[in-house]
Amino acid sequence: MGDPSGIGPEVVLKAVAENEVRRVCIPVIIGDAQLLAHTARTLDLQSGYDIIRRDEKLPDDISEPVIFHLDNIEGSIEPGIESAAAGKAGAGYIEAAVELCAAGSIDAIATAPINKRALFLAGYSFPGHTEFLAHLTGAEEYAMAFVAANLRIVLLSTHVPLAEAIRMVERDRIVKTINLAHRELQRWGIERPRLAMAALNPHGAEGGLFGVEEASEIVPAIDACRGPEDINVQGPFSADTVFLRASRGEFDAVIACYHDQAMIPVKCL
Amino acid sequence: MGDPSGIGPEVVLKAVAENEVRRVCIPVIIGDAQLLAHTARTLDLQSGYDIIRRDEKLPDDISEPVIFHLDNIEGSIEPGIESAAAGKAGAGYIEAAVELCAAGSIDAIATAPINKRALFLAGYSFPGHTEFLAHLTGAEEYAMAFVAANLRIVLLSTHVPLAEAIRMVERDRIVKTINLAHRELQRWGIERPRLAMAALNPHGAEGGLFGVEEASEIVPAIDACRGPEDINVQGPFSADTVFLRASRGEFDAVIACYHDQAMIPVKCL
Repeated sequence: MGDPSGIGPEVVLKAVAENEVRRVCIPVIIGDAQLLAHTARTLDLQSGYDIIRRDEKLPDDISEPVIFHLDNIEGSIEPGIESAAAGKAGAGYIEAAVELCAAGSIDAIATAPINKRALFLAGYSFPGHTEFLAHLTGAEEYAMAFVAANLRIVLLSTHVPLAEAIRMVERDRIVKTINLAHRELQRWGIERPRLAMAALNPHGAEGGLFGVEEASEIVPAIDACRGPEDINVQGPFSADTVFLRASRGEFDAVIACYHDQAMIPVKCL
Repeated sequence: MGDPSGIGPEVVLKAVAENEVRRVCIPVIIGDAQLLAHTARTLDLQSGYDIIRRDEKLPDDISEPVIFHLDNIEGSIEPGIESAAAGKAGAGYIEAAVELCAAGSIDAIATAPINKRALFLAGYSFPGHTEFLAHLTGAEEYAMAFVAANLRIVLLSTHVPLAEAIRMVERDRIVKTINLAHRELQRWGIERPRLAMAALNPHGAEGGLFGVEEASEIVPAIDACRGPEDINVQGPFSADTVFLRASRGEFDAVIACYHDQAMIPVKCL
């Protein structure tokens, strides 16, 4: 359900009511039944789903959406006001989702908006869902990735200041991310994934005039993956066109150097 | 014509042959007549335009495309091989274009691709067209800008390493760029331009968790423009959606923090 003081309850109720969603899955809303009922009343949204309490077992044979009610909101929550109580409740929904998924009770998790400052106030030091999910599942190798139709993007870094993201464009991290993308795309059924690496600097630094990271970090990482690992990765390609090229089918995925380099084309395309 | 060893001669000949171009202007190709003829023969492109030599005056009454022949290529030029000779010739086309424009012989300049390393080899220390044109015209206040249908973007910096572009996100530079964008959009006929400032860091730094430049530089700059100058500028807005919003008509222009932040949405949209 996301942060209970945020837009999560509204977008979750709207999404669950969509035929497009109902055709592909049976949603289990992990959140707060009272708050969802209040949101539905206030905004005149469809609701009235069956409620299952946390201490009950999620039935195997549900055929309609249900609310998995955690009852974990302490005190009162004001819409639009960030608080430790809201951050803690939102974190609880993510933890419960991972538990249900690990137990095989649900097949996949869709996350709703969280407020990272509220999470911090509640004592969680994760910059976003990616790191939180990695922690809960004990994943040692992970990356944030976006998929939008043909366009798949795997990120070198997530929610860090841009100045820090630049420092994270380093050979070892790139090699690990390329290997991870290669392996996971194979598990998705792409036999020999065609990967493209985005450049960090304008025009891919144009021969070193506009930056050094391409020559010192990115090219050595690509060489290390192409030769010994025999991975089909090319680049670095100028960031202004590589995402467009991938969306037209030239590559199966692009490795992006920083958050907005990936988010801008995902949302524009 | 751009760098004579690059793709410029080909794209210029193709563009000039387009009806879409011929409907709106009478092109004057500033370049090398022999190289253009050779390119046209090799690629079977339309050519055969009248040739006017540099020492002749450009007639006022041309009604068909012409080639303004500079004859400034020293030695031989190899396609795809960067060289000082090619850089110098390409620079000469830009200088001649500015002269013709300043003299009122042409109304506007469209530039073709140059190779910035070749320019450097030829002794020109400009990172791109923007700075070169500013130098030739003596412009003290200038910025690179992109226009693609509804989307107008003005850049804080051009062709510099991303690490340096971050350091250039500073209050005074932002104030100057906002003022420049405001003034020039008014000259274009927009009475009270609606300007949006893009954030530098992911999610606009989300309250300072992911970076400091929004709070220390961008917000003070916006405040300085809104109050004393009474400019309609808002932000900083998360970069992943602000360009999309502008392209849908919500803003007349966006101020972008660095090159790729502007180029990615321009090319994707």
